[in-house]
Amino acid sequence: MAQESYHTQHAPFGAFASFTVGLVDSQGGFGQSLGVPARQNVYVGFRSAQHARWQMLPFLNPPVAAETAFTAEDTVPRPPGGFDALRPAAYQRTLNWASDTWRADESRFGFSLLTPFDHVADPAKMKKSAARFQLAPAIFGWIEYDNRAGTEPVELMFGIGDPSRPLRPLSEADPKLVGFAGGTGWGYATAPTRGIELRQGFDVFAPKFRDYHGLLVIAAETALVFSVPAGRRKRFPLVLGFYAAGTQTTGLPASYAYTRVFDDLEDVLKHGLEHFDRYAAIAATRDRELDRSRLNPDQRFLLAQSTHSYYGSTQLLWDKRGPLWMVNEGEYRMINTFDLTVDHVFFELAWHPWAVRDVLDLFVRRYSYRDRHGLAFTHDMGVMNHFTMPGRSSYECDHLTGCFSHMTMEQLLNWVLTAVTYASHTEDRRWLKTNLKTLLACAESLHVRDDADPKKRDGILKRDSDRCGADGSEITTYDSLDVSLGQARNNLYLAVKTLGAWVLLERAFGALGQAKAAGDARATADRLAQSITQKFEHDTGFFPAVFEKGNRSRILPAVEGFIYPLYLGYTDATNRTGRFAPLFRQLGQHMAQALQPGICLDAKSGGWKMSSTSTNTWFSKIAIAQHVVRQLFPEVMNDAARAGDRVHADWQRTPGCGRDAMCDQIRSDSGVACGSRYYPRGVSCYLWLSE
Amino acid sequence: MAQESYHTQHAPFGAFASFTVGLVDSQGGFGQSLGVPARQNVYVGFRSAQHARWQMLPFLNPPVAAETAFTAEDTVPRPPGGFDALRPAAYQRTLNWASDTWRADESRFGFSLLTPFDHVADPAKMKKSAARFQLAPAIFGWIEYDNRAGTEPVELMFGIGDPSRPLRPLSEADPKLVGFAGGTGWGYATAPTRGIELRQGFDVFAPKFRDYHGLLVIAAETALVFSVPAGRRKRFPLVLGFYAAGTQTTGLPASYAYTRVFDDLEDVLKHGLEHFDRYAAIAATRDRELDRSRLNPDQRFLLAQSTHSYYGSTQLLWDKRGPLWMVNEGEYRMINTFDLTVDHVFFELAWHPWAVRDVLDLFVRRYSYRDRHGLAFTHDMGVMNHFTMPGRSSYECDHLTGCFSHMTMEQLLNWVLTAVTYASHTEDRRWLKTNLKTLLACAESLHVRDDADPKKRDGILKRDSDRCGADGSEITTYDSLDVSLGQARNNLYLAVKTLGAWVLLERAFGALGQAKAAGDARATADRLAQSITQKFEHDTGFFPAVFEKGNRSRILPAVEGFIYPLYLGYTDATNRTGRFAPLFRQLGQHMAQALQPGICLDAKSGGWKMSSTSTNTWFSKIAIAQHVVRQLFPEVMNDAARAGDRVHADWQRTPGCGRDAMCDQIRSDSGVACGSRYYPRGVSCYLWLSE
Repeated sequence: MAQESYHTQHAPFGAFASFTVGLVDSQGGFGQSLGVPARQNVYVGFRSAQHARWQMLPFLNPPVAAETAFTAEDTVPRPPGGFDALRPAAYQRTLNWASDTWRADESRFGFSLLTPFDHVADPAKMKKSAARFQLAPAIFGWIEYDNRAGTEPVELMFGIGDPSRPLRPLSEADPKLVGFAGGTGWGYATAPTRGIELRQGFDVFAPKFRDYHGLLVIAAETALVFSVPAGRRKRFPLVLGFYAAGTQTTGLPASYAYTRVFDDLEDVLKHGLEHFDRYAAIAATRDRELDRSRLNPDQRFLLAQSTHSYYGSTQLLWDKRGPLWMVNEGEYRMINTFDLTVDHVFFELAWHPWAVRDVLDLFVRRYSYRDRHGLAFTHDMGVMNHFTMPGRSSYECDHLTGCFSHMTMEQLLNWVLTAVTYASHTEDRRWLKTNLKTLLACAESLHVRDDADPKKRDGILKRDSDRCGADGSEITTYDSLDVSLGQARNNLYLAVKTLGAWVLLERAFGALGQAKAAGDARATADRLAQSITQKFEHDTGFFPAVFEKGNRSRILPAVEGFIYPLYLGYTDATNRTGRFAPLFRQLGQHMAQALQPGICLDAKSGGWKMSSTSTNTWFSKIAIAQHVVRQLFPEVMNDAARAGDRVHADWQRTPGCGRDAMCDQIRSDSGVACGSRYYPRGVSCYLWLSE
Repeated sequence: MAQESYHTQHAPFGAFASFTVGLVDSQGGFGQSLGVPARQNVYVGFRSAQHARWQMLPFLNPPVAAETAFTAEDTVPRPPGGFDALRPAAYQRTLNWASDTWRADESRFGFSLLTPFDHVADPAKMKKSAARFQLAPAIFGWIEYDNRAGTEPVELMFGIGDPSRPLRPLSEADPKLVGFAGGTGWGYATAPTRGIELRQGFDVFAPKFRDYHGLLVIAAETALVFSVPAGRRKRFPLVLGFYAAGTQTTGLPASYAYTRVFDDLEDVLKHGLEHFDRYAAIAATRDRELDRSRLNPDQRFLLAQSTHSYYGSTQLLWDKRGPLWMVNEGEYRMINTFDLTVDHVFFELAWHPWAVRDVLDLFVRRYSYRDRHGLAFTHDMGVMNHFTMPGRSSYECDHLTGCFSHMTMEQLLNWVLTAVTYASHTEDRRWLKTNLKTLLACAESLHVRDDADPKKRDGILKRDSDRCGADGSEITTYDSLDVSLGQARNNLYLAVKTLGAWVLLERAFGALGQAKAAGDARATADRLAQSITQKFEHDTGFFPAVFEKGNRSRILPAVEGFIYPLYLGYTDATNRTGRFAPLFRQLGQHMAQALQPGICLDAKSGGWKMSSTSTNTWFSKIAIAQHVVRQLFPEVMNDAARAGDRVHADWQRTPGCGRDAMCDQIRSDSGVACGSRYYPRGVSCYLWLSE
């Protein structure tokens, strides 16, 4: 395995902002609304009597020419000396669910970043004090040294250097704040106490120029230097805040919800310092929950890393109607991509279920449309803070048969599955009732996409949207895989997902007293299950990925559609010997044969592959498949399949993925990300905690 | 001479924003509050029947991997083809005072950017309609093709690609707008008319993916394609706008003045299109004024390029008191650096004199202080939108003898000179009267910095501020030159500048009826002039640059202090045979000898050097020296000195300076900028128009 080296997004709730750090020999830092890690110097380290030079975590690359831009000196500028960038062997890093901790110098030195995520109540009903606590655009941290055995004082450093701008000392805005900020947008502070020195200059290790308060305010490198006396152990708190004022979006103009309860960055930082202990306690609770889970260490790492990137993509705004929830699609920054919403639902229903409801409502209100078959929904709501026109996504183009084509069927299923999953899990019958008309229209649309003639229907979606044009055809969320998962029509993955949708519709209609619709849904599910069984290849013991043109690809998402009844505890639909017993028998055989090296386990790496005919595999979908397999088909989990966790974790914690924090689209042979970087969707592995 | 290739900042008034373009084979584009050129693709070109491929000005570098981030294709991505980047020999560029025009294809193709600067009235008293016209954060342009002799239609392209974000089609915000925007901050539009196609995709030359309105909204490359039918000549207008909402500054929180009269970017762009002709007429007037001036072509280029960079650094905000004027210091982005204010005064008094007054008032109100000698002023008011604490600059540090030390004497002189120049030129006696106390305190402070004992005074400033500390000493604005100009104490440049200050004080006190103070100022001026004459080296015929330690550097700013009485028409002080006749005789000899190759004309390049002992020379100061020399010492302008204009212009129009638009600190031997890039101060050459 390559050396452990990965970025992690340390992010507040709903601020579309991350403090990203961790990749060895790389910068990181504060990033607002970025699709990639920021590129600031992150100064974290210590200097003890035994080290003449600062011992720094390897997250900095101090500028060499900033000073000579002023002095116009001819000499070739030399990089700041005075520090050693620690090699990975010299420190230990531990990523937990809500903390990321580095230790060095025989654990005497410690640095930690805390992201205390928690249950968030519906912002529409939040009181101001709760809103300040829950929506604070801040993360937390500490730096410490155990100098109890020491005989000399030890110095600690935390700081930031931004190549694009000088920072400002926060004390000039508020004497109670000890730290620095980049304009009005981001900054860091510690609690005022003795033994803290502020540094700002071209070289924070050896500042040559000091003004009346000891700084050089025109320079872009800043740091806090903390002193730990001999015989003492001291830990200093850190708060890292963001603040973006004013209208952030176009199309649907909206501002950050937190700007309603925080005046500015200084307000955020002071609040963070004031409530530091309470936030730290929440982070500790989350860590403990993960520690006490039954996940193995690789799974824990994957959930921790995923959760961090998820929060970095969240964005809670406020428009004239009230709260406006967005999850941005990682490096692509598309807004509320429905393919992601349906996979985030398991995490979001646990922590902020109203977000799921609000997104569903916005899809109905603004991002639904009717094609010739009936009701449908768009792939997304826009991109990079721009909400596209009603009924239009930023992604979907016409006259295509691959990437960028329409995903009409897929998104119709996504609305049904997300809606019923939300309503059933939260028992929000009122919401479900309000949406009865939409659910009925969805059912009708599903039917027509099978066949206009009810007598010819077999339950399998096979009629493309006219939005594609005569020369185009629909694709699935697996847009960048080969045809095995990319084509929507006659697609195994979509067929089983459709089965899941009808199972949920049956329950929803039943709960709303719609006996006829429920009966129709049940009958359709049964017919569809039977139709799928007829596609089974008895000679090979596999399902084909596409029921067309002799396709023989083998895919793991054959079972993805069962995640919804499984999650909701609809045992009648997940009983191996129940109403879908014949289908389960075939799927069991399919999965047992697929989870073999060279089929859907990569022959080289051992990682899980979405498709036997593509080396592009997606971690978020692997996570769902693993969960379904372990819960519904435990017998197929052979040793090779079980070994996948280590492989998947190694992909993320080495630079092939780790240079962009959590990545989703990965080459199964090399472990290198090939798309979907800096991505929120890995949080689907939250499902594992229920095993 | 190296190939002509330079960036120019095309900037609105007071928006601290530039559309920078022009350097060969380089990107540019929209930059908000930057100290360097932006890095966007700028698509400008044409395709005619005779060219199968687009013929583009060389300002683009289309992305190669944007598409594969979505499609996860393994193939090595190929850069967009379909275009040729024109070589400089294939086009002509003409920079005028308020326009920048490119011609190609035997002048049939044309593209121009217009920056119609004009007199701006005091914003505190502006009516809304005037404010909208004068403060609009927009620049203008056009693209055209003369296809009158053609038999096939010709296509024109203007567009922008931003590597950091997808753009949005403006039509989604306002159907009347044809163009694209980056979020809420910047965008471009043309007037709706037939024959315009919008493009957005990974490759605007050959868009592969088109949605319902023909675009791919997730992609970052955008363009307008205009069609010019055979037999027609068509010119299409362009408006390029900026908009930055909300609080921009810290320390003194303030927002852009234009946000009081424009709602958003769309409002700016529509306004620009509506009033396009009026703005274009103003630009044409400015161009005509420069064309009709007596400047030679090199001088015209230098004034045009300087004016463009000046406006790019201007920033008009509004705080709770009203208008807040800032000029940012180029790449350093220090706020209202006083060293620049005093040099910008000649330009600003012509175009927006209230700006000078407002800055002087803010220096008195917030950025004055008292050291042990008396009243003084700070070097600047902060940096990068951060206003430092009252009485403190962002630049000045303690215990230093070179760069980053205090400039107390220099800034005291700058306040006096700027204040009296403002009041005298504008005849604002009321303002002068309001500031009488400050003027008297300045005079007293000047005296004490000479000597505490009146009897020992010779007029030459020689006592450093105690802010420097016992081990530090003051520097001058020429901070990065050698000691010849860097040391404040006993400095020739400062001594003559002090003479200028006393001459102005005499007039000011006289105008205010302060006979005693006027008499004292006159006596001090006379004594100082005499003191300076005593420093003349009769053996060499030069003044030493510093009256200490046997310094023998020769400097051109020996005459800089005479610019103020010269500008104000105080002929008694500039009469070669008048009260300062002995000093003028010596300065004439000094300058005649200095303006020789190997002394203050660079032996290699022929460019003017500030100091005989430094190769660091500053264009803005050369411009002042040239003006003073030509007006007061015309006889010393030998052929070699006259040839300097060409040298100085060549420095700016080749990449050594040109890669950062107007540059001020330049190596006199190589013509390469060594500091002060992207800099406003070159506008001091506006003085030349009065010759």
